Amino acid sequence: MSKRWRLERQIEFIKIADRLKSVIRSNRTMDGSRLENAAEHSWSAALMAYILAEYSNEKDLNVPLVCKMLLIHDVVEVEAGDTLIYDRKGIASQWRREQNAADRVFGILPSDQGEEWRRIWREFEASATPEARFARAVDQLSAVLANYFNNGGSWREFQVKKDEIIRTNSPIHSASKSLGKYVMALVSELTRIGRIEK
Amino acid sequence: MSKRWRLERQIEFIKIADRLKSVIRSNRTMDGSRLENAAEHSWSAALMAYILAEYSNEKDLNVPLVCKMLLIHDVVEVEAGDTLIYDRKGIASQWRREQNAADRVFGILPSDQGEEWRRIWREFEASATPEARFARAVDQLSAVLANYFNNGGSWREFQVKKDEIIRTNSPIHSASKSLGKYVMALVSELTRIGRIEK
Repeated sequence: MSKRWRLERQIEFIKIADRLKSVIRSNRTMDGSRLENAAEHSWSAALMAYILAEYSNEKDLNVPLVCKMLLIHDVVEVEAGDTLIYDRKGIASQWRREQNAADRVFGILPSDQGEEWRRIWREFEASATPEARFARAVDQLSAVLANYFNNGGSWREFQVKKDEIIRTNSPIHSASKSLGKYVMALVSELTRIGRIEK
Repeated sequence: MSKRWRLERQIEFIKIADRLKSVIRSNRTMDGSRLENAAEHSWSAALMAYILAEYSNEKDLNVPLVCKMLLIHDVVEVEAGDTLIYDRKGIASQWRREQNAADRVFGILPSDQGEEWRRIWREFEASATPEARFARAVDQLSAVLANYFNNGGSWREFQVKKDEIIRTNSPIHSASKSLGKYVMALVSELTRIGRIEK
């Protein structure tokens, strides 16, 4: 592969990934002004990973790897679309749709680089390493904060009950006891003031 | 400072930083559908840094540091607003406005962390290290690509001439000869087909 052709494929990937700016999530921005897109969400999550890394249960967390996971974690949605974590029907077909999308999206890159990013994305998806668990915790915390700052946000809109919110966000504890505890406190507060159904 | 108070300050910073999603830049998203905001731009730039790091003039580039710079490089704009690189009047007052904004924004964080991010932001601003130069090159390339994919984009809109575009983007060469050459080729092509004024 010529050097110029390699660069062209990388630029093409950047152009396709840019479509993430049009993938709309189910939660609002923290100021409530509009629904959030997956590109700006990914930025926020990557920054949060650095700000909150000290709360990891793991002493030697590889924070730059967590950051790379969060930069890329939603990229396949340029092909597969976003799936609300409480949408059971969507979740069922999500895995196959996302694997196919990953083949197409990472396949645009030069193969060495495509394989590297696909490996990072798979590691995030599998949630089996401390870095993947922490990245996922930050991803979840990001949605929790958006809902908290918006009086219940998508939880209220989709009438998600307290128990389901707690169950869905319980993996946060396995990445960070402090952040897990913090999230539970926010959920309790919203329940107490009637923003979340019991 | 109690542990809980420390976390509250970090969450407050994340909430204030989130306003970057409402800071609108002068270029469009790559698909041309709308003007880009500074949060999604920062995501795209951080990802580009990893994808294109191999083109750095520097062999031992600290890419995670470049990424951190790009995650944070626009954060002060939640207070100071965006300034078009070709807007000379705005540029004149930009430095003072941004220093004050940096005091306020990074001052929200616990002091150890606020100082660390402020140092990273200052390093980016000063453009004196290989990492800062590469981060800036990626930041500029991001705007170049947006304009290229939009038939001249903000260059056409603000009638920026070829010579000024070349001068403004010339620092890219000091970070990456390959990317500098690539940008010059894109600008030449747009000039040849009449999208940029000579």
